[in-house]
Parts: sequence; structure tokens; C-alpha cells
Amino acid sequence: MTQELRVSREELFGASCRALMATGMSEAAAGSASEILVLADLMGIGTHGVSRLDLYTQRLRRGAFRLQADVEVVEATPSMAVVEGDGALGAVVGQTGLQTALRLVGHSGIAFVSCRNSNHFGALAPYAFLACQAGMICILGTAATTTIAPWGGREVKLGNNPFGVGAPRQDAFPFILDMAISTSARAKIRKARDEGRQIPEGWALDAEGNPTTDPIRALDGFLMPIGGHKGYGLALAVDLLCGVASGGRFLSEIQTWVTDTGQPQGLGHFFILIDPDRLIGRDLYNSRMADFCRIIKETEPLNAEKPVLLPGEPEGNAYRDRIENGIPIKTDQWEALNRLAEPG
Amino acid sequence: MTQELRVSREELFGASCRALMATGMSEAAAGSASEILVLADLMGIGTHGVSRLDLYTQRLRRGAFRLQADVEVVEATPSMAVVEGDGALGAVVGQTGLQTALRLVGHSGIAFVSCRNSNHFGALAPYAFLACQAGMICILGTAATTTIAPWGGREVKLGNNPFGVGAPRQDAFPFILDMAISTSARAKIRKARDEGRQIPEGWALDAEGNPTTDPIRALDGFLMPIGGHKGYGLALAVDLLCGVASGGRFLSEIQTWVTDTGQPQGLGHFFILIDPDRLIGRDLYNSRMADFCRIIKETEPLNAEKPVLLPGEPEGNAYRDRIENGIPIKTDQWEALNRLAEPG
Repeated sequence: MTQELRVSREELFGASCRALMATGMSEAAAGSASEILVLADLMGIGTHGVSRLDLYTQRLRRGAFRLQADVEVVEATPSMAVVEGDGALGAVVGQTGLQTALRLVGHSGIAFVSCRNSNHFGALAPYAFLACQAGMICILGTAATTTIAPWGGREVKLGNNPFGVGAPRQDAFPFILDMAISTSARAKIRKARDEGRQIPEGWALDAEGNPTTDPIRALDGFLMPIGGHKGYGLALAVDLLCGVASGGRFLSEIQTWVTDTGQPQGLGHFFILIDPDRLIGRDLYNSRMADFCRIIKETEPLNAEKPVLLPGEPEGNAYRDRIENGIPIKTDQWEALNRLAEPG
Repeated sequence: MTQELRVSREELFGASCRALMATGMSEAAAGSASEILVLADLMGIGTHGVSRLDLYTQRLRRGAFRLQADVEVVEATPSMAVVEGDGALGAVVGQTGLQTALRLVGHSGIAFVSCRNSNHFGALAPYAFLACQAGMICILGTAATTTIAPWGGREVKLGNNPFGVGAPRQDAFPFILDMAISTSARAKIRKARDEGRQIPEGWALDAEGNPTTDPIRALDGFLMPIGGHKGYGLALAVDLLCGVASGGRFLSEIQTWVTDTGQPQGLGHFFILIDPDRLIGRDLYNSRMADFCRIIKETEPLNAEKPVLLPGEPEGNAYRDRIENGIPIKTDQWEALNRLAEPG
């Protein structure tokens, strides 16, 4: 039986940095990316934490993610910038975008940064958390490998492009919405296939564009966007803010991530930061935000044992537990992670 | 049988202005609001066009929308402002917000304006169209009367808070996403009830929070957000950007619109404008946006007679037809609209 242990944030961060540096990545870039991965693990988003390092380091070694990328920040105005990712690891480009936005927001309380020619971004929640820690409301998104057909179409042309909004809360974990646009993740459909189960209606279309509950037909077909044409429109809007606004690539121009083509994916991300302190003052913002959260939390639940949750609340619960007690990781995964740090 | 006629944009605009001015509204405010209403009719969004004037003028006369409102713009920074709506007609506050954002975006290519203490906003698409006509990418939203329960809750606490994104296209009607967060509108459920039909699963919950296909039970219950907890989170995010960011009201603090309480609704709106010209230059933006739209339009459709549509395309088709041939309106509606201009 696989054992599980708990490692501290510092231990996990160290192991992540060593794994990335073993590919030849600089200490600064490895630290920047590891901050994002470890935050995902702290928030309980294990699918987007250090478990990705196996694939990330393989790609870095093969050049599908570019180690020698020249990540460049083009400041278009005192409040807007484009980040040219040059094929670097997504979390390195993402952190450059976020840190640039955090610097520019000082100018007049709002900033927009669009990133191009990047790779798999990971979860949005860690970036949103960092923005909120700096006191900012944020709106962010990323393009992704294409898995969705335009509404009424039968060709995969757009990703399930996650979209997020974060807002700081005084003395509480932030409000963090981090949602992919598909009804369900492909991973859940693969799980149903492996367990011989049907999937619910509304998750997927087959290759002919017909609704299906057969996971095998679904995996050959398309994910369904939430709300049909509405989710389709939202996925397009995210792609536009990432790809068109940055002068980068989008839609079917993005290289797949599922099968490694040896090429950077060429996808984009975007960040909008808003400083509520500069807009209405910190005290009024904090007081109204507290009221906002209280009104939701006071809602009578359908099931008395399941109180209504705010976006970010499950992640906040995981975060508090893991900061105090360490991050759970299976022994073999921990050993595999440490082996990544060995000279390759 | 009711006859239908076609009236020109100018005729409809004139009738709308006269109806609003007959309540005592200033010519400037009436013109500003009428621009939004007539644009909705031009885009084929008849539910949010001049057909609303009957209710709007009733409320203005009763003081539920405040004629003597002191709409105030508080410029917090050169790029951000709060609009205090003071209970004015929603389209007047909305236009003030949009025009303020269009002015501020000149400073550094991005602007954020959040509006508070406003009323029913109408459709987002007309505001997005005006922003795009000025060359701007826009992200916008509005709070609305509460019709949705927080996910896992059994009390109506939030609106179906429409969210939108607009982006200009060279020589084409803009990309305009304008989506409410509920799976279906209440109006469609009322129609099903009136016609004795069941509604599809996924549209609504009954008052106990159970899924229902009975329109009567649905109307006593809650609208379902798209994607379940995802749409719930998105509706919250819109409310936060409208209500919390402006220091205004939100969630169940918003007065209903369905039954007239005699009070302003107190809801908010928000606008983010981004100037792609200042970010990456007009030529690169136009060229990438054209490619973006072409890739989508080239998608093989499920049904050969139904090509894939971009958000805003149906509205653009209606717009072109109606600019050229006039706006269709039933004779009795046209007469009723003109009667609103008579001294009350």
C-alpha cells in the first residue's frame, strides 16, 4: 500500500526548485514557477501542483518548453504591457505577467497585461491569490489546448479557457473564482471510461456533434461548454483577451498539450488588476466586502450539513490546514519528485 | 389582426425622447437613454428596447426612478471613477459610466468605472457597441433583481447578472458577447406556463431547491445558473465588480424590479475599457482580430444550413437590415409609444 506523508511548504518548494534547476533553468525562474505550483498544492489543487513537474521537466529537456527563452516585457503605456513569452514555461511567463501588472497598477490603480507565446499556465487560483495578497481585485484568464467545438460546429477549435476573478477579504482567504469553461474536465471523462461508467448528459458531444453519454465516444468528440452558446462565447472572449489583445496566437493556432509536438504551445494569458484602495478607499472596500460575504454565508442551505460556499472557500480551508500541518503527498510521488532533481 | 410597420431609427429615437421628456426628464438625459434603447431595437433585442418605456415612464412619474437625481462622477484616479447614480434611470447612469470610461481611457489606454445606486440597465450590447465604435475592447456587466439562489442554498440572493465582452472588428459589426448567467430567462418559463408546456431539466429549481420541469413550481423557485457552481461564481463576480467595487449595494440589498416597491433598485454596473491601438497598434490588432473571426467562421457546421456564428453576428445582421429598412414595430405599440409623449 502506498504511504502518504506530509511535507512542509518549504520542503516542497525546495524540491520543486531543484527539479526545475536540474533541467538548466535559472534559480530565479525556478523559484518563480515553483511559487505557483506549491500554492496550487497548498490550496488542494493537486492536479495543477508539483505533480506537473514530471511532464514540465521532460518538455524543458526536449525544448518543447524553451529554457533559453527571452521573456520580454513591452510596456505599451504606464498601465498596459504585453509579455512576449518566447516559448518559456507557462508559470514563468505567467509570473512575469502578474508581477508586471502589480508594478503597473501603481500608476493609476488599474493595469492590463496580456501574454503571448507561452505554455500551460496551471491553475488560475495561485496567481489570483498573489494579486489579492497585494490588495488587488483581479480578473484573469488563460487560453488552453483546443477541446471545444464552436457552438453549432463539428471541429475542435477552442480551449476550455479558464476564467477567474479574485478579490481580497480582510482577515480571510480571498474570494477566488477559477473556472474552466467546459461542463466537465476531460480527466473526469477518462475516469468514467476507465471505470466503465456512462457520463451525464450535457458533458460532451461525439465526433459528429451529437450529445453522448458514452465516455469513449465523448473522448473522440468535444467537451460541452457551460450554458451552450454562452460558454462558447465566454471561451472566445478569454481567447481574445489572451491571444488577439497580445498580438499572439489563439484558437486552432495553439499547439496541443496532450500529445507532445516538440513545439511550444504558443498560448496566451491575461491579467487585469484593480486597486480598490485607490477607487473607494480600503475601509469602505473591506466593510462592503465583509457584508457581501456575510450575506452569502447566511443563506439557508438545501442540506443543513452543507453550508453555502463562497468561491475560494474550499481552497482557503485546504490552505490553512496545509500551512499548519504540511502538504499531503504519497511517498512514491515524493521520491519521484526528488529523483527529478538528480542530474539527468 | 395587428399590423406591423417599419419606422426609421430617427423616428423611433424621437418618439423615445418625447416619451421620456413628457415625464419631466431633461432633453440631454432623454437623448442619452434613448440612444441605448433604440440601439437595442436596431440589434433585434426588442425585449430591451423602447418596449420598456411604458414601465420606465410609470416609474419615473412615481419616483421609483428619480427624475431629479444628482448623478455624480467621482474620479478616483486618472483611469478610474465611481458613478453615484442617485436612483436615476439605469440607462442614464449607464451612459454616464460609459462616457466617463471613454474619457478616462485616453489617459493610459485602460479605464475602470463602477456605478452604484442605479436601476434596470437594459441590454449590455448597446453599451458594448458604443465602446467598440470608439475602437475599444470592453468588459462590462450589471447587477439585476435577485432570481438565483447561491449554489447549494434555498434563498434567492443574486441576480442573473449579465456579463459581456465587446471587441471592434474592422469593417464589420463588433464581436459582442452579452450573456445573462441563468440557463434560461424567466420570460421563457412564463411562456411555457402560459402554453401549458413543461420546461427542460436544468432551467430551474423549485422553492425547496429540487430540480423541476414544472414551470409553475419553477416560477416559485429559482433560476439555475449555467454550469451550476460555475455560473453562481460568475454571477457573484459581476455583483462584486458592480456593487462592492463601487461601495454600493449588492445581492439581496437590491430592490426587486418585478414588483414595484416605489424605491430605486440600488443596483450597480461596471465598465472596463482597453484600447488595443495603444497596446499593440491598430494594424496588428485588426489583422489578428480578422484572423480570429475567420478561423471560427470556417468551422464545419453540424448542420450545413446553419453556419457557426460569432457573438454579435445575429445582432449585426438585424442592425444592417434595420438601419436600411427601418425597425419593425406593431402598429398598436407604435401608437402606444406616441401616446406616452402626451402630457400626463
